[in-house]
Amino acid sequence: MPTDHTHPTAEALFAGVDLGGTNIQAGVVDAGGSVLSRARCKTRAERGLEAVLARIERVVHEACSGLGIEPSKLDGIGLGSPGGVDPNSGMVQDAENLGWRDIPLAQLLRHRLHLPVAIDNDVNCAALAEQRLGAGAGSQAMLAVWIGTGIGGGLVLGNQLYRGHFLSAGEFGQWPIFPWGMPASRTIEQNASRLAVAKQLRHFLDAGTPTALRELIEARAKERGEAASEASAEPVKSKLIAEAYASGDALTREVVHRAGELIASVVAGCVSLLSLECVVVGGGLAEAIGQPLVDVIGKAARPLIFPRRARDVRVVLTKLGDNAGVVGASLLAREAILGPNPRA
Amino acid sequence: MPTDHTHPTAEALFAGVDLGGTNIQAGVVDAGGSVLSRARCKTRAERGLEAVLARIERVVHEACSGLGIEPSKLDGIGLGSPGGVDPNSGMVQDAENLGWRDIPLAQLLRHRLHLPVAIDNDVNCAALAEQRLGAGAGSQAMLAVWIGTGIGGGLVLGNQLYRGHFLSAGEFGQWPIFPWGMPASRTIEQNASRLAVAKQLRHFLDAGTPTALRELIEARAKERGEAASEASAEPVKSKLIAEAYASGDALTREVVHRAGELIASVVAGCVSLLSLECVVVGGGLAEAIGQPLVDVIGKAARPLIFPRRARDVRVVLTKLGDNAGVVGASLLAREAILGPNPRA
Repeated sequence: MPTDHTHPTAEALFAGVDLGGTNIQAGVVDAGGSVLSRARCKTRAERGLEAVLARIERVVHEACSGLGIEPSKLDGIGLGSPGGVDPNSGMVQDAENLGWRDIPLAQLLRHRLHLPVAIDNDVNCAALAEQRLGAGAGSQAMLAVWIGTGIGGGLVLGNQLYRGHFLSAGEFGQWPIFPWGMPASRTIEQNASRLAVAKQLRHFLDAGTPTALRELIEARAKERGEAASEASAEPVKSKLIAEAYASGDALTREVVHRAGELIASVVAGCVSLLSLECVVVGGGLAEAIGQPLVDVIGKAARPLIFPRRARDVRVVLTKLGDNAGVVGASLLAREAILGPNPRA
Repeated sequence: MPTDHTHPTAEALFAGVDLGGTNIQAGVVDAGGSVLSRARCKTRAERGLEAVLARIERVVHEACSGLGIEPSKLDGIGLGSPGGVDPNSGMVQDAENLGWRDIPLAQLLRHRLHLPVAIDNDVNCAALAEQRLGAGAGSQAMLAVWIGTGIGGGLVLGNQLYRGHFLSAGEFGQWPIFPWGMPASRTIEQNASRLAVAKQLRHFLDAGTPTALRELIEARAKERGEAASEASAEPVKSKLIAEAYASGDALTREVVHRAGELIASVVAGCVSLLSLECVVVGGGLAEAIGQPLVDVIGKAARPLIFPRRARDVRVVLTKLGDNAGVVGASLLAREAILGPNPRA
């Protein structure tokens, strides 16, 4: 156990870890949410649990060395994991893209790092960060909608992360929009995530629809010394979609706007159901496209919201962006150890 | 002001008023939720606000006389109103079916009845009653779905009515299921309420589809000495729908099941979003049809719920039935005056 925990103050330091299917990011974060030092590496979940734990340990060490401190100087570590997480027991219940099921992650990391560890779902961490220090600062009823490879969500109600009975709340992406459609396409995630957008774009590319995307993809493949045919096998990435979108490409704008409008219909329902003060939109695709996507969502959602006065809901772009996960994870640990909102 | 408030005990008596577009119901309710005495009358909102206030006063008096007491012996009155209600200011913000807008209802009733008055939305009251004493007793994350002339909802999260930022939470009926359809048919209420079901049945009746409903409607018209053509002008009532349903009428079952399945898709989304422990189904149509409708909703909802463990959510029929509004309104006042859950 660390020896330096006798005087937890506003200057206490926590590390936040954002554990993703592709990358692990870590940062040492102060009470104001500033990331003082950071590190990242690939997750490589296919190498097994022990290997991932070692990588998490390594990035935490790296983030600390960037600040010239030992991890033992930290007051604790917070971690956001994809999938279902029980923050009370510290278990990752199931994280499909890591291939994990019932992993006592908090305990395993505690043993490795000799520090208190708090864990939660990754979008819950991002939601907490946005509500405490970001685009939803101070709002009492906030939904975070994270549009990336998939679509995630997190709820902060009455200044607290809302987890619900099965500790699974916030599953925005699983909203059934075509409930009796094909299982593969019935949720909002399956119709409007970055993967869904990429799939739709690929369909039109393969059908020969004129689009600026084709050149962008080929140019990118050339840079990497690949043949265009190889490039065509993988899903179009957020950056490329954003580039085509920004260039005014009609197809990309159409597909992205349609995804935004589908998301808007669920956002509207959530605002009506929960009388939300604020909806923060983030995640890889949302960050890449930025304000225009938020504008599409807000504009399409408002007429569907009831009652009329709830149309005053703020629909805003993430302020913390790619930092939200790391900052939120650090806040999770900070509040678990020092108590909620030490500065509020 | 009443004189008998010095020793509020578990035996304190509160009246609950369920103010509807058609009827006003009142009851004197004890701490255990037993309705000791009740009264009802027509609302007659078309006669204006003062007339409705006088009628509310009258039914409260009648309910009290049934118990041999003066209203001054009550410790307070709770009232559930349709539409948007601000429980803090005691204002009915807008209640379309009463033609009300910004009515300081709590204050007006306080002046008339010389008693403390608490008000809230009617389905919020019903939800509170079901969570405290009914089908959702003790659940920490509960949604009430009230399927009647319209579709209403109420949320009890963490043992408290959840009202949200605009105090409008629970608007289940406004969920956009066909968001870019005709405005008149895009919400779940517009597709699956009793009025929507009645409209669909009427369509098939007029088209000559064979159905037991036709005879039932004609028999009902005959009883009242009306011609069948007059009867055909009004929407089919819940009791009649339930009678045809119970008789096994194929058309009625098809239309009711389709409505139930639409409701199920929104229920599933709510369970995923809020990780609900319990969904209580009530309201005129649900009470009339009963358990079979709840079974349809539960069965259609479960496969759409994520994550899998949240499929353990309880989907149950109202236990308090038509009493839920009156009991919930009395609890609202009781808890406002004596503090939350005096017996818990």
